[in-house]
Amino acid sequence: MTQMAVASQELSTEQGTIAVGGEPYLLTPGPLTTALSTKAAMLRDWGSWDGDFKAVTAEIRSRLVEMCGGEDAYDCVLMQGSGTFSVEAALASFIPQDGKALILMNGAYGQRSAKILDYIGRAYVTLDKGDYLPPMPEEVDAILSADGDITHVVVVHCETSSGILNPLKGISDVTQKHGRKLIVDSMSAFGAVPVDVADVPFEALVSSANKCIEGVPGFGFVLARKSALEAARGNSHSLSLDVHDQWVYMNKTGQWRFTPPTHTVVAFREALHLHEKEGGVTGRLARYTRNRDVLVSGMRALGFETLLEDEWLSPIITTFFSPADPAFDFGRFYDEIKARGFVIYPGKLTEAESFRIGCIGALDHRVMEGVLKAVKESCEAIGVTNFGPPDGVK
Amino acid sequence: MTQMAVASQELSTEQGTIAVGGEPYLLTPGPLTTALSTKAAMLRDWGSWDGDFKAVTAEIRSRLVEMCGGEDAYDCVLMQGSGTFSVEAALASFIPQDGKALILMNGAYGQRSAKILDYIGRAYVTLDKGDYLPPMPEEVDAILSADGDITHVVVVHCETSSGILNPLKGISDVTQKHGRKLIVDSMSAFGAVPVDVADVPFEALVSSANKCIEGVPGFGFVLARKSALEAARGNSHSLSLDVHDQWVYMNKTGQWRFTPPTHTVVAFREALHLHEKEGGVTGRLARYTRNRDVLVSGMRALGFETLLEDEWLSPIITTFFSPADPAFDFGRFYDEIKARGFVIYPGKLTEAESFRIGCIGALDHRVMEGVLKAVKESCEAIGVTNFGPPDGVK
Repeated sequence: MTQMAVASQELSTEQGTIAVGGEPYLLTPGPLTTALSTKAAMLRDWGSWDGDFKAVTAEIRSRLVEMCGGEDAYDCVLMQGSGTFSVEAALASFIPQDGKALILMNGAYGQRSAKILDYIGRAYVTLDKGDYLPPMPEEVDAILSADGDITHVVVVHCETSSGILNPLKGISDVTQKHGRKLIVDSMSAFGAVPVDVADVPFEALVSSANKCIEGVPGFGFVLARKSALEAARGNSHSLSLDVHDQWVYMNKTGQWRFTPPTHTVVAFREALHLHEKEGGVTGRLARYTRNRDVLVSGMRALGFETLLEDEWLSPIITTFFSPADPAFDFGRFYDEIKARGFVIYPGKLTEAESFRIGCIGALDHRVMEGVLKAVKESCEAIGVTNFGPPDGVK
Repeated sequence: MTQMAVASQELSTEQGTIAVGGEPYLLTPGPLTTALSTKAAMLRDWGSWDGDFKAVTAEIRSRLVEMCGGEDAYDCVLMQGSGTFSVEAALASFIPQDGKALILMNGAYGQRSAKILDYIGRAYVTLDKGDYLPPMPEEVDAILSADGDITHVVVVHCETSSGILNPLKGISDVTQKHGRKLIVDSMSAFGAVPVDVADVPFEALVSSANKCIEGVPGFGFVLARKSALEAARGNSHSLSLDVHDQWVYMNKTGQWRFTPPTHTVVAFREALHLHEKEGGVTGRLARYTRNRDVLVSGMRALGFETLLEDEWLSPIITTFFSPADPAFDFGRFYDEIKARGFVIYPGKLTEAESFRIGCIGALDHRVMEGVLKAVKESCEAIGVTNFGPPDGVK
């Protein structure tokens, strides 16, 4: 059995030896495998009110604004909690109580936005494309033409349920044409898929520390027009999730309103430095794209089929149909591949059996070649010989 | 100048040498100074859906229930975000929309609970004792006798604004006598000040990873009666902060609903192991009490005075009046003491100048002796010779 886990190391300290690494690679789009130096940044404690930590917060905010080309018109607000906390915070803060949203859905994350609006009591309509079809700009155009009450369009950039990269630019264009505002859930794409406000002049964009910037989980961030941040005053249903209040306080004091996840924040700064060193969004996209290409062509060579046509494949995560072979059992397959050093994701389709493999994190094409070997060996270990999907599944 | 910072160490890895330690001790009650092994637990990445991580979550939940003597009647729900996120989650989930709270206030954290109820739209009255006086059981008794509509009493266990340890047991007794429900914000006390449901049969208690259990910040937890967790269905204003929903999902799947701060969670498990090794709540209380006693007697010997009488001093954090000496300037004092290896807190009193020094975290009486030396040297460095407070300040 080939062991392809993260290289094992030992760290010597005065308090004894610390084992590091040896865990499986995470082919799951967040939490993901991070660089050792990102994790090592967490080996000290920081006072959250101290000047040293305020400087970290300030650096992160300005680097993220820079990453979307936001310059003076945009600002960045960091928010404790998972990415969903930041999505809820943004939806409640930017859609006023008398606003109305159009939610573009093609998977779990679009559905989650609708669920949030149910909780917080905002009006909305949906364009629901089911499991994996993209919401098309023409469809959005028609809905916005017919319904003048819609104030905001909410789109998931990369819907990781299927791995589809939705047509953000086209959707943004029609939203602008109708004078409506765009809120982008770019959780799993920002940092690797370019988003520049010159092309996609969003009202707000939400992402998280532990996705393409390759930090560890613990907070999210909202990039938003300063005018939107100002107008958000009094909109939020929640003290903890009030983006306006967090923004005003951060600008006034340099601190977070409530205890920040200090170690996670400092790890994220290191992750941003590594991101820059790799060539920023361009460099990261190139590595992830190569990861995806090695994975997809290798899996197809084995006989697997992707859910999506090439046009819609993201460089983030790819869904493969499970083999039709009756010997295939996802639980056993997962255990075999984990024993070979890789953690993968179950599928999220309602109609066909599938599984997902991510391409993001501190891993490269050589790791993806290890994945291919492990997939083949794992299938053989559980007695699967035919890797093709059932007839007619696509 | 004496350097009393956390001991510097170097860790050797294949990727080079990592410097560890050397930062100041945090005498701030969360984030605080943690053990190296707690931080070192963050040196690997975990898949949040994986069985290995589910086992960590399960262990933490059961250890916390055990810590409050909750046994079968109570359960524990972990919640992403800072402690305030968990307080908001608990208030919204346990106080029904037609409920009414009595908030006992004597500082910033009681005030924050009231602010949360303003956001989420729950009726409440307050007993506001100002900066540092304790809410007394007799007062609570009188209010509950006069107002039969009050369903819940909300109390801050240790109000770190002043450092006072509020009379939890007496308040709990009168709350029970009137058949009302008690919600305890034990953010900065749980794990070091004993709370057993046999003595204090709370409805819910909230605390956080980065306080007396000495984890790193990133999540909080709610200990609650299972009957309260069941009754909380549909109460929450927020998807992210819905305690009932998080509880049901955690019990069903072993996972968190949304991405957990994996590294923080695994660090917390290590912190719980160290807590047990120290003798649990009893051992931790003994160390913190000794820290406090060394600090307070040493500071008094220098001429400083505490805000509170001995009866109300917590083993968590102590407020000292700033010296009356006109040369005293908190900013300069802070910088001098930081240069000597210690980060302290500004005061939070509305009427008198003060500062605060914490006693919690991975530090012992020898560190507190270093603090005393640094306080003396720092005052001398800025030209303060008389450490006593202004006349009549108490």
